[in-house]
Amino acid sequence: MSAKQEPGNWSPDGYREKTRQQPEGKREGETRIPYHNLTSTLHTILLREGFQEEPARICAETFAINSLEGVYSHGVNRFPKFVEYVRAGHIQPNSQAVKKHGAGVIEQWDGQSGPGPVNAYIASGRARDIAREHGMGCVALANTNHWLRGGTYAWQLAREGFAYIAWSNTIANMPPWGASDPRLGNNPLIIGVPHEEEAIVLDMALSQYSFGSLQVRRQRGEELPLPGGYDKDGNLTTDPAAIIASQRPLPIGYWKGAGLSLLLDILATLLSGGQSTAAISANQSEHSLSQVFIAIDLKCLHNYTAMGDTLRRIIDDYCGATPLRDGDSIRYPGQHVVATRTENLERGIPVFQEVWESVLKL
Amino acid sequence: MSAKQEPGNWSPDGYREKTRQQPEGKREGETRIPYHNLTSTLHTILLREGFQEEPARICAETFAINSLEGVYSHGVNRFPKFVEYVRAGHIQPNSQAVKKHGAGVIEQWDGQSGPGPVNAYIASGRARDIAREHGMGCVALANTNHWLRGGTYAWQLAREGFAYIAWSNTIANMPPWGASDPRLGNNPLIIGVPHEEEAIVLDMALSQYSFGSLQVRRQRGEELPLPGGYDKDGNLTTDPAAIIASQRPLPIGYWKGAGLSLLLDILATLLSGGQSTAAISANQSEHSLSQVFIAIDLKCLHNYTAMGDTLRRIIDDYCGATPLRDGDSIRYPGQHVVATRTENLERGIPVFQEVWESVLKL
Repeated sequence: MSAKQEPGNWSPDGYREKTRQQPEGKREGETRIPYHNLTSTLHTILLREGFQEEPARICAETFAINSLEGVYSHGVNRFPKFVEYVRAGHIQPNSQAVKKHGAGVIEQWDGQSGPGPVNAYIASGRARDIAREHGMGCVALANTNHWLRGGTYAWQLAREGFAYIAWSNTIANMPPWGASDPRLGNNPLIIGVPHEEEAIVLDMALSQYSFGSLQVRRQRGEELPLPGGYDKDGNLTTDPAAIIASQRPLPIGYWKGAGLSLLLDILATLLSGGQSTAAISANQSEHSLSQVFIAIDLKCLHNYTAMGDTLRRIIDDYCGATPLRDGDSIRYPGQHVVATRTENLERGIPVFQEVWESVLKL
Repeated sequence: MSAKQEPGNWSPDGYREKTRQQPEGKREGETRIPYHNLTSTLHTILLREGFQEEPARICAETFAINSLEGVYSHGVNRFPKFVEYVRAGHIQPNSQAVKKHGAGVIEQWDGQSGPGPVNAYIASGRARDIAREHGMGCVALANTNHWLRGGTYAWQLAREGFAYIAWSNTIANMPPWGASDPRLGNNPLIIGVPHEEEAIVLDMALSQYSFGSLQVRRQRGEELPLPGGYDKDGNLTTDPAAIIASQRPLPIGYWKGAGLSLLLDILATLLSGGQSTAAISANQSEHSLSQVFIAIDLKCLHNYTAMGDTLRRIIDDYCGATPLRDGDSIRYPGQHVVATRTENLERGIPVFQEVWESVLKL
């Protein structure tokens, strides 16, 4: 085995893999769209697709914020697919989550096939409101759609002083460990905490690389920096084309990520009373997902006033580690978001010309 | 890159790596001790070490159950180290967790340097009691000690009908991604749900392999089945000796596990008001840990009566995946525990002769 850890390639927190369009400078085939133009363009399209004002606004803003903050794959790049799902009837533009059952600080909500971002805002907001009253709140949401970038809701709650844990199941896209056919979702897991007016947010799918990332690298003829799955002969490989062909991407940590995927799916399904990865996969397309949103009100804890200092000491120790390459800095999950947001607000959001044209044609 | 997935070697859920002493048949240098003899031997030693009756019983039973259920590294194999920590004053035999602060369904407890298993039983039991009343309960525990095998408490709560999420921080033993010196703990994460009178329990540390496993393989001159860290030159390696020398074991999923470790440490520290991995590491030895215990009462949910069927369908789909090697079966996390427990109850618990002699000399 010989695969050097290449600091130039690694993804400090999973975001880098989503940010193949780097914000630094303009690249070939890329245009920059001001945030408000992007939002209003998407908003107009959604109104035309039958969205009422509020869900259109929430969805347009969520797509735009995700691109603004550098998570392009879960921002405007995904917008054409979102509209396709609306047209196919998988996403009901004006449906939204309603409460089905309350059991103390856990509530079970039905997303009624509404747009994922609308439902995720409702569910995370409700978890926050329960937490405000009882220290902690949990909303389990059935029959919802892709939330785009789960971290968006963590940033929002963190800015309001809440710690946040959430996850979603997905359609099957990874095999169980020791098996060859996909039965597990890459179920994203989100954890966020407030940090100095901003947040520290981990937003990670349980596959080592996203499918978007594998596809982009295949198109470019690039190898992965580290093995991302198996080829058809069962060898670990850094060749994205071989992984796509075998349908055997790696779960993070091999058997461990496979186990974590299964348990997150089980919890999301049992708590929400909704569809499991197995049931979603029987639908062929990825809708009717199950999600869990947990908020914790840090302000009610006895050590609240000391938390800023405590967290600073943790981050100082972490970032004080010796980098493998002189001059590199050690970054925490979500650290780049603020800089990317600032730059993209100032210079406009980089969007592939090809993507932008397909959006304008919708 | 060429490392075949070897079904003979893989660990379906992380446990296999802890079960180097296989329960099948007696091995060289191994003896089998009946469960009750093991418990009473450990109990007697703990009383001699100054434990009162109840903490002695809880600790002895926890060590014995962990070995009984096949997690030998976190059972009797760890007992001499536990006694060493008691003698060094890191574990106060008769201290136990007390409530410091309650904020709705979250409570902050101080473990007062008591034995990890005693405090974990108290904290998980209290989380369960809060959940029984409010659907969900969370106990954040500061100043505690190693809980041995976190899954033990998940099994207990699952048998009572509760879903369970818990994690602990540890001393630093992995570098941040892109760095060379340890700043992150391998912070174990536990998720459990009830399943057919028993449980499905994921119990995983965030390093790809445990240090115990690396050490055992180094002694035997065995390679790891998959890369477990970097050597001194920064190459991924399957050589356990090279990883121990470099102090660069791999987090699960590379940058993703590193991020997850950081966020679990931050949450455990902020919620409990206790020590972070950085602060624990400054102590040089691993004590004064921070832990979080969350229980969810499944009985209060609207779909409770359907959960058995729902979970069976998930597991049937998962276990129905096509194995890479004909005749292999796909197993879920914790599946082997019941069979191991049954066999070890019947035949006695396998213990290395050398370990047993060192226990008897305590």
